[in-house]
Order: sequence, then C-alpha cells, then structure tokens
Amino acid sequence: MKVIDGSVTAPKGFLAAGAAVGIKKGVKDLALIKSEVPAVCAACFTTNVVKAASVLRNIEILKCGGKISGIAVNSGNANACTGELGKKSNEEMAKAYADAIGVTAESVLTASTGVIGAEFPIDTVREGVKKTAPTLGYSRENSLLAAEAIMTTDTYSKEVAVQIEIGGKTVTIGGIAKGSGMIHPNMATMLAFITTDCNIEKEMLQKALSEDIEVTYNMVSVDGDTSTNDTVVVLANGLAGNEVIDGDTEEYKAFKSALHYVNERLAKNLVRDGEGATKFIEVNVAGAKTCGDAKIIAKSVVCSSLVKAAMFGEDANWGRVLCAMGYSGVKFDPEKVDIVFKSAKGDILLMDNGTPVNFDEGKAADILSEKEITVNIKISEGNECAAAWGCDLSYDYVKINGDYRS
Amino acid sequence: MKVIDGSVTAPKGFLAAGAAVGIKKGVKDLALIKSEVPAVCAACFTTNVVKAASVLRNIEILKCGGKISGIAVNSGNANACTGELGKKSNEEMAKAYADAIGVTAESVLTASTGVIGAEFPIDTVREGVKKTAPTLGYSRENSLLAAEAIMTTDTYSKEVAVQIEIGGKTVTIGGIAKGSGMIHPNMATMLAFITTDCNIEKEMLQKALSEDIEVTYNMVSVDGDTSTNDTVVVLANGLAGNEVIDGDTEEYKAFKSALHYVNERLAKNLVRDGEGATKFIEVNVAGAKTCGDAKIIAKSVVCSSLVKAAMFGEDANWGRVLCAMGYSGVKFDPEKVDIVFKSAKGDILLMDNGTPVNFDEGKAADILSEKEITVNIKISEGNECAAAWGCDLSYDYVKINGDYRS
Repeated sequence: MKVIDGSVTAPKGFLAAGAAVGIKKGVKDLALIKSEVPAVCAACFTTNVVKAASVLRNIEILKCGGKISGIAVNSGNANACTGELGKKSNEEMAKAYADAIGVTAESVLTASTGVIGAEFPIDTVREGVKKTAPTLGYSRENSLLAAEAIMTTDTYSKEVAVQIEIGGKTVTIGGIAKGSGMIHPNMATMLAFITTDCNIEKEMLQKALSEDIEVTYNMVSVDGDTSTNDTVVVLANGLAGNEVIDGDTEEYKAFKSALHYVNERLAKNLVRDGEGATKFIEVNVAGAKTCGDAKIIAKSVVCSSLVKAAMFGEDANWGRVLCAMGYSGVKFDPEKVDIVFKSAKGDILLMDNGTPVNFDEGKAADILSEKEITVNIKISEGNECAAAWGCDLSYDYVKINGDYRS
Repeated sequence: MKVIDGSVTAPKGFLAAGAAVGIKKGVKDLALIKSEVPAVCAACFTTNVVKAASVLRNIEILKCGGKISGIAVNSGNANACTGELGKKSNEEMAKAYADAIGVTAESVLTASTGVIGAEFPIDTVREGVKKTAPTLGYSRENSLLAAEAIMTTDTYSKEVAVQIEIGGKTVTIGGIAKGSGMIHPNMATMLAFITTDCNIEKEMLQKALSEDIEVTYNMVSVDGDTSTNDTVVVLANGLAGNEVIDGDTEEYKAFKSALHYVNERLAKNLVRDGEGATKFIEVNVAGAKTCGDAKIIAKSVVCSSLVKAAMFGEDANWGRVLCAMGYSGVKFDPEKVDIVFKSAKGDILLMDNGTPVNFDEGKAADILSEKEITVNIKISEGNECAAAWGCDLSYDYVKINGDYRS
C-alpha cells in the first residue's frame, strides 16, 4: 500500500469543488463531489434518535439500492431539528445539485453540518450549488477546496489517499473528513466522504465500511456528545478496472485493509483537531476477555473528563485511569492491572500488577510534556485488545462551546 | 416536617468531631461520628469495580449485620488503588477509632476521600484519631467541624437537618456530605453521612435509603466520572423513642419522605458546588413511557458536556438539549418534543411540539443570566417524569482538574 498526496479526486473519475456561497460569513461552506459514472455506495449514519434532514433522506435513498452520482455538503447549518420545512429544504438542495450535474435527485446524497435548529437558508444554498457545480474538477486543488468547505470549528482540513494493486490494476482510495466538537464513539458530529475507483459489489463495500467504523471513527472521543448529522459515505465507481470484488477474497481483504488505513488516519486527525485539544491520547487495552470488553475499557478511559483534564495538566494521575476502567462496566481484577504512560520521551510504569509504583515524577512530567501520549493498559482476563483515541480537555474547549452560535 | 439548623449532631445521642491532623497541609482532614448507643446501619457504595479499601471493608462489616457505633472519615487521601498495604492501613484506622471510643473494630466504619493511588499516611491518621476522639461532642459546632473535615475541593460545607413527628415522638434526621469533582450518576466521589434517632429496623432503613439514592445522589452530574470511594451511610440509634418502624407503614412513609428531603438537599448542594461550577441546572423530563426512560433522558441532558458548556456561555442552544436526548438510548418521537428554559427571570419556549420556535434571543439571554436554570422537557410517550441536577462546565473545572495532585 502506498500513501499518496490528495484525497477525493485521487481515484479515477471523481470530481470535487468547494466554495464560499454565503451560508457562513466569508468562508467556504459548500462542497460538491461527483463521480463521472454512477457509483455503488455504502454509508453509515448517526445512531442518534434525532436525525438531521439529510441523514433521514440519505437512509431512504440508500434503501432503494440505486447508484449514486454525487454528494452535496454544506457547513454552517446542520439542518437538524428543523421540522417539515427542513426536510423540504433538504430535498431542494438535492434537486438543485442533481439538476446542475444532469442526474436524477435520487442519485444524489446530501450532508449538512453546523448549528442545530436554525432555519436552513435554502435560497442561498440553491444559488450556491448552481454557481459552484461548474467549478467541479479533477485536480488536487479541487479536493482541497472540498475538504476546506466542510469544516466547522476544525482548524485544518483532513485529507488522505492511498493506492493498492488489485489483480494487476491500481486501485485508489481517497477521503476527506471534518470533525472537531461533539466527536465521540458512535459516529458523533463528523462527516467523512471516501471515494474509490475500486470495482466492488455494494454488499461487500457496506460490509467493509460497517466493520471498519467500529474500530476507527467509533473509537475516538472528544467530548462524549453524539450528533444528529454524522455521516460516512463511500462511493466506488469501478473505474480502476479490477475484476469485481464480490466475496470475502484476498482482493477484498486488500481493499478493506487500505480502507482501514484511510479511516484510521481520518479518525485520528479528527481527534488531533478536537475542539481546544492540545494533546493526542491513544489508549491501548490488552489482556481482555473479549474484543468488546477491551473496546469498552479503552473508550471509558479516553472519554473520562478527569483523565482528559489530567492530560491537559500533564499530571501522571494514573488513579483516574484505573477509576475510569473501573466504572466502564467491564469486570476485571483491579489487583492484576499494569498501566504505562508513554511518549516520544520514553515510557514509565505507574501500576505494576495492581500495585502502585513509586515512580519518578520528573520523568513522568517529561513524558507528558509531549503532544502525543499513549496509555498502555494490561489486564489479566484474556488475550483480546483494542485501541481508542482522544484528546485532552482544555480551557479552549469550554470557550469554543460556551458561545458556539455567535 | 420542619427544617432545623444543624446536621449530624441534631438527632439525640450523636456526637461529632473534626480536626486538622496533618494528612493535608493545615486544613481539617479528619471527621469522627459517634452514636452513644449502637445504631442500626444502612449504606450504599460505589458501583465502580475498583473500590477503595474503606469501601471493601465496610461492605464486609455490614454483611455481618451488627450494629455500628462510629464512623471515622479522612480527606486528603482516598486510600484507593493502594493494594494490600492500603487494606492493612484501613484496618488500623478502624481499630484506632474503635480503641479510642471503647468499642470493637467491627462496630466502626471508615471512609476516605482525596488522591487515588498515593500511600495512606497511617501513622498520621492513627495519631490524629487518638487526639481527635476526646473532642467528640454533641454541639452544633461539632457537626460543622465534621462537615468541614470531609471536604476536598468543595468550597463550602454541606449540612442539613429536619424534624418530623412519628407516633407523638419527635424524630430528627441530620446529614453532612462532600462532593465536588467526579460527581456523576451512580454515586460518584461523594460521601454522605446521615444520623437519625428514629427507631427503625435495619431492613426498612436500607430499603428507604436504597430507593431514595436512585432519585437523589444518582441523579446528579458534575463531570461523568464515578469514583472508587462513594459512600452513603445512615445510622439510626432509636433514641427518639418512637415505636419501631418494621414495615411499609404510614410511619415508614413519613420517615422516608424526611430522609428524601435530606438526601435531595445534600445532592443538590453537591452539584451547586461542582468543581468550577457557575450555574445550577435542573432538568425535568415529563411524558415518558417509564420512570426509567425519564431518568435516562434527564441524565443524558444534564451530563452533556456541550449542554454544560452552552449553559456556562449563557447560550440558548436548545439543539444540544434535543441532541443529548436523542443519543440517550431512549426511543421517542423528536417531532413531539417541547423544550422550555426557565429561571427566576421567567421562562421561554424554544421547541414547541417538535418545531423550533423563533424566540427572542434577548429574553433568552436574560433568563440564562441567572445562577439557577431549569430545563423543562416534554415528550409524548406516556405519563412518567424525572428530574436530574447538574452544573455548567467552566474554565475553572479544567483548571482544578488539570493539576489536582499538586
């Protein structure tokens, strides 16, 4: 597998555009993605009972099983909790994009992110789509514009692309994502759009995506809130020309592994750019009875406000790690736990087989002064492991979220 | 029912003491409670898998069913995650107090709060207990000293006392509590000690307590972390002279209702004093199918970091309320939801039967400028309701928890 420059326009036959159309003040707020031939589509959406208009519509469209030609995405307004009017506006947004690229409305998906509950500025969006569609293009620059246009409180755009060989053909996968606030296990406010020229059946594409989000996007946490708009969409247009992947073959495994790289890279970047985050935290749990247990413990630690605040304060408070493990709901013997904190500066054992280690505070402080911290946990219940990613809790998180609407 | 001044020394036959014995630097850190006759005892402890030495010991002692004569409590060191040595130290702490008041170690409970994982300073505690026990007294001042001695990052002591008439006798209930950080549903780091001269059977006392914590201490949230040390203990010494309460009688109901007042008052004060809190938030949910559903939704809203941060910023972001309801796990129709924000300055309808209301931002800001905010939520699934209490998320929360150990 080769990591290459670019993102959604890297695979064959995909175009993108991004522009400032006036939903937000003076910054890019509309992204368009198009496949020159209809693509099979797999997607995963928020588990929140309250779903944005775009999510409800996408679910209905994908139920019908047709191919997808394009995705229109706006930032600045989530079009969620907006009632019947919001649904109508969302339909119009899809229709405007479909008309602009000459396809049916049913072959277009939509996504929205931004403020919840504010009326959707459909006139602005309709005009914006009309004006931006002609700028759709295949270039590296086009994908960057799209990546920038889906940002809300993100401080940088997230892009990734990889290439693999499948049956002698070069298959490319590219993706863009936005995250920042409300990122949490269970697909919190995040959008990810992935394109690939791989030739793959819809069922296998959905299987690869559904399984992979469980160990990527669903293992990150910024603040524990799950949003109304979360969406991950993969479009596969088949233009790489590989023989169709229609079962659990070696080719499928190669594709899934590349897709995993794309998803993990995007997921980690969402966390790195968590609202107000100053540190990236990886929590590894080993020795669990089941994979599910390992995931629950890892998430519990990475989601703990007290662990997050301790990381911000560069305080080697391993007691909070053990405490968060303890209330995770998973049973384990607290007297057989190892806890290690690690960074580029080295590693330090803090709890050894259930016994607190009299550690060197100076060394611990030095390790925690780094931007990327790993917490390695070992319990003694079995052989399963899992990883979760999060960020610290800073003053700026509170600042950003205390006054988001203004 | 009459609310009276005082707390744990208000009921007949209870003594208390509080002193600075050197576990912390120059502030009170040891509290003692004593009943002049052995008392029946009910208690609830943390659900965390990782339990402090004192919690493990108390559970064992209460299993035996004997009466309790005293409780020794220290702040400054949680004696949690401290291995075998911690357990031994805890035994010694109990023995020191039992010796000092001339009872067996099995009739003494202990509790600890403070830093997790640090070695327990048993010599200091032993000496402290010996020196402080002779100061045990019945006065109002004695109970205040005890209330102050159990504080950690609390900014004020929490005390309450009430009186009721049962069968012509005056029954008094008094309580002290400490909370602040890590307060969360499921008995997070909080200690509450309640004394009463009521004559009541152990089983009925435990029933009253177990049921009541579900709608009081377990409905508050500061930050979502559940601690290793949470303890609520009620001692009933029978000195009020009422006929023994041994079944689900009118007298039991009167006692339970008074106990509820004590618990709710203490629970709300824990939240008001949440680390860095600037606002008190009450969330009421009505129209749920079951009481359990109502509680889950209320807790989900009150625990949301985004709702908390919006309250801190005095931002009427009702979308975050609906969003937190949506990911609570309870099914409801988002198109039949009412949301009202309320304070001493008035109330404002933000969502009416699933439709966003075009509300007056000035009025909303005025309402949210108050220190006590109520969020009233109505869904249309049934007739059950619940309340939960929390505080906002401020810069100071991060500051306090970023560097707690130093």
